[in-house]
Amino acid sequence: MNVPVDKSSPSRPRRLADVGRWDMETDVAIIGFGGSGAAAAIEASDQGAAVTIFDLASASGGSTALSSAEIYMGGNGGTRVQRACGLEDSTEDMYQYLMAANGPLADPDKVRAYCEGSLDHFNWLVGLGVPYKDTLYNQRAIMALTDDCLLYTGSEKAWPYNRVAKPCPRGHNLQVEGDNGGPLFMKIMTENVEKRGVKVVFEARALTLIVDDERRVHGVVVRIDQQERCVRARRGVILCAGGFAMNQEMLRKYSPLLLAASEPIGNPGDTGSGIQMGMAVGAAAINMHEGFVSLPYYPPSSLTWGILVNAQGQRFVNEDCYHGRVGYYCLQQPDRRVYLIANVEDFGDYEKTSYLGAKFVATAEESVAELESELQLPEGTLQNTIEVFNRNAAEGVDPLFHKTAEWLKPLELPLAALDCTPGHGAFYPFFTLGGLDTLPSGEVLTAERTVIQGLYAAGRTACGVPRTASGYASGISVGDATFSGRMAGRAAAMAGAHD
Amino acid sequence: MNVPVDKSSPSRPRRLADVGRWDMETDVAIIGFGGSGAAAAIEASDQGAAVTIFDLASASGGSTALSSAEIYMGGNGGTRVQRACGLEDSTEDMYQYLMAANGPLADPDKVRAYCEGSLDHFNWLVGLGVPYKDTLYNQRAIMALTDDCLLYTGSEKAWPYNRVAKPCPRGHNLQVEGDNGGPLFMKIMTENVEKRGVKVVFEARALTLIVDDERRVHGVVVRIDQQERCVRARRGVILCAGGFAMNQEMLRKYSPLLLAASEPIGNPGDTGSGIQMGMAVGAAAINMHEGFVSLPYYPPSSLTWGILVNAQGQRFVNEDCYHGRVGYYCLQQPDRRVYLIANVEDFGDYEKTSYLGAKFVATAEESVAELESELQLPEGTLQNTIEVFNRNAAEGVDPLFHKTAEWLKPLELPLAALDCTPGHGAFYPFFTLGGLDTLPSGEVLTAERTVIQGLYAAGRTACGVPRTASGYASGISVGDATFSGRMAGRAAAMAGAHD
Repeated sequence: MNVPVDKSSPSRPRRLADVGRWDMETDVAIIGFGGSGAAAAIEASDQGAAVTIFDLASASGGSTALSSAEIYMGGNGGTRVQRACGLEDSTEDMYQYLMAANGPLADPDKVRAYCEGSLDHFNWLVGLGVPYKDTLYNQRAIMALTDDCLLYTGSEKAWPYNRVAKPCPRGHNLQVEGDNGGPLFMKIMTENVEKRGVKVVFEARALTLIVDDERRVHGVVVRIDQQERCVRARRGVILCAGGFAMNQEMLRKYSPLLLAASEPIGNPGDTGSGIQMGMAVGAAAINMHEGFVSLPYYPPSSLTWGILVNAQGQRFVNEDCYHGRVGYYCLQQPDRRVYLIANVEDFGDYEKTSYLGAKFVATAEESVAELESELQLPEGTLQNTIEVFNRNAAEGVDPLFHKTAEWLKPLELPLAALDCTPGHGAFYPFFTLGGLDTLPSGEVLTAERTVIQGLYAAGRTACGVPRTASGYASGISVGDATFSGRMAGRAAAMAGAHD
Repeated sequence: MNVPVDKSSPSRPRRLADVGRWDMETDVAIIGFGGSGAAAAIEASDQGAAVTIFDLASASGGSTALSSAEIYMGGNGGTRVQRACGLEDSTEDMYQYLMAANGPLADPDKVRAYCEGSLDHFNWLVGLGVPYKDTLYNQRAIMALTDDCLLYTGSEKAWPYNRVAKPCPRGHNLQVEGDNGGPLFMKIMTENVEKRGVKVVFEARALTLIVDDERRVHGVVVRIDQQERCVRARRGVILCAGGFAMNQEMLRKYSPLLLAASEPIGNPGDTGSGIQMGMAVGAAAINMHEGFVSLPYYPPSSLTWGILVNAQGQRFVNEDCYHGRVGYYCLQQPDRRVYLIANVEDFGDYEKTSYLGAKFVATAEESVAELESELQLPEGTLQNTIEVFNRNAAEGVDPLFHKTAEWLKPLELPLAALDCTPGHGAFYPFFTLGGLDTLPSGEVLTAERTVIQGLYAAGRTACGVPRTASGYASGISVGDATFSGRMAGRAAAMAGAHD
């Protein structure tokens, strides 16, 4: 099952002393031209550095262009859009929410920097020309398909987070119709990069870092036109090469959760090469078992009235939280059987609007017992689950999982069930959230928390603000990628040039 | 919350060219004198290598001496003890069990080597003088407190593993009364090391590896008597320095599961220093989020008749499986509330014999509703859980979690409940199962699966056969440590000496 081991030619960093001559020179070399690489390039260039971006694709975009490019922003009293919508958002609420949502491995320094810098980040994006309309999209949705801006993209209104911080919508959707935010966002970012005279080299594969005997990074070896070129980066190399969703071998080493999901989200370059280049010079990769996973069971949002049950006929999560949190818990269930049960009328236009791909497996006209039996659930389990749920829902409470009153109503015949069991056709997209350990500045750390001079990482090559599917919010990955890219771009540009 | 970052003096491997002179020379340098280090030393010495062990403690032992030193062995028709007890064990059953138990991240090559080499490993230990009595300890127990040998130490007889492979007891307990296996085992191992003329240096802290410009490892820097000594290891360095259960900072970077457990198991040297030394030369650390965790709710074994329920009044695991698997699932429960409910008579001599430390929080004389209310569980949940459990238990089945008939009987009043909620006093011991990625030979790998020449790792410094608490079996860590130590000792000794 393992790939062959190559004992003859261990890949390793290139020694500075072995670099005969520099084929190219720049102040800041950036590996990857997605959201984080673009942000890093713009910021480094604005700090006066000469910048070169290398990407193995033949155009900019990375995984950001494939996303909706929602960005999670707020705090600081509110962004222009939040305030225009009559909402006030506090930095402390945003911080507390993100700390709780990202769990025990959340990085307080990074979350703090992200929240405190969030309004500035919004203004920076607007300054680059990213268009946001001052409107609220007040729906339970995975994304806004209109050109409206502001929506709830996480579990802010759901238990347990609603106990931790005042909810506020922080997902900012671009002013564009349909799911077209990503291409528009990267078009604008790319124009800004070009406008600054940043040098861009496409179809260029970064191979390894160039280090001196003190382990300081001086540049990077890049393969261009079949030839290895030694690129000197006087102020630093920034790894913005994405995560490892496309690397099966790494997934098998690190991420059992993601192996159970159905489809990687990202571009073919998300092979972990940036993480590997960092590890090769002694950087620590952390949180490698975690990722974004999702069960996108809405739209239609009316399915949120339903319940999810496992092979024991038991509920296991409040169904009004974010689809990523739900997907995470689905993959944790013993036996990995999962059904979504709802009133027939609440399926609405499921087959037209849903991304889910789950199939109907049972319906019940006359009794819950009928449904229980059709789903081959142990006798008395689903019946009790629904009895308890209904009795409490009628009073607007959910003592088991604290679903909010907004999404509570009794389940009533006729009922239908979708098979959301992983592997049975339901769509479980994923990408990785583990990466190189960095400071908020993007400086890369070893396992002993020492800084590797001259090396920076951002976006999914680093382990940033988002740490777990169980607390994920749409817009936090592109938000973190662009924010961390800026921090790294600035830090690298301001670093003293190497000798 | 983070420890300060030292930007001034990044720790890094020592460059061979910077080593002025060797303070000591040996063929094989072993870092750590616990079970894996001892096994590595014996094997390397028997292959003709000059061996030196360094340990920061002032005596041998490591974490193995603190354990029960049960060893998980079998297959190949059976060990002498298995056969004497009338049991036949197949390598394939052992392999299938360990692959299933260790989950999606199990390493088939390592598990295969471990199973195929298991009888030889038993004979090797016997040859060293490790005493095993040819008797079966036919109890459901965490360890044998008699001098009997063979017991079930995993979940072989429990679902889902009983569907995968024919169960066979494979835990081998030393012939010694009480929980004294670890000290005896390490005494015997130490005598064997000494007998071979292996050089042992105590109170010696390994600091960093010595590498050449091709990243080949040539030795190790060790601090002895406050002085740094450069130790040349002509054939290789073997890292046998344990895991990182004692390193809070690493636990917070990598292991959210273990942060929720109550007490690290191991010696104070389990700080991850061996893993960090490997990472510093580009080795990949894998499976870092996983560990052994346990809820030792037996003895008395009669508590296995009970059920475990969560804050929703729902069962979540078959209670007849291994205590580590149970502990793992306890820590996964939403809200993290866990109760053990059993017939009062089944608590037996709980307060005298248990390791659990959980307190009684409720009893019910008259009705389950009373217990449900005392435990503040949602009305109707525990009542239904027990109704379904009892109805099926009376027929010897458990359609929810497949507890075996052997441990099924209806719960009957009076009932009592222990509070096993993490953080409420129940004992949740843990240690780490992530470590350096290695081949079965112990050769250490980079993230790109290339071998780092001259470097080996074994025991908990490596990521070995055991990969997850959810499928752990007592005896697999000491088994893997001694087995992987031997493999590494042999491979290092047989490697060509460096120039």
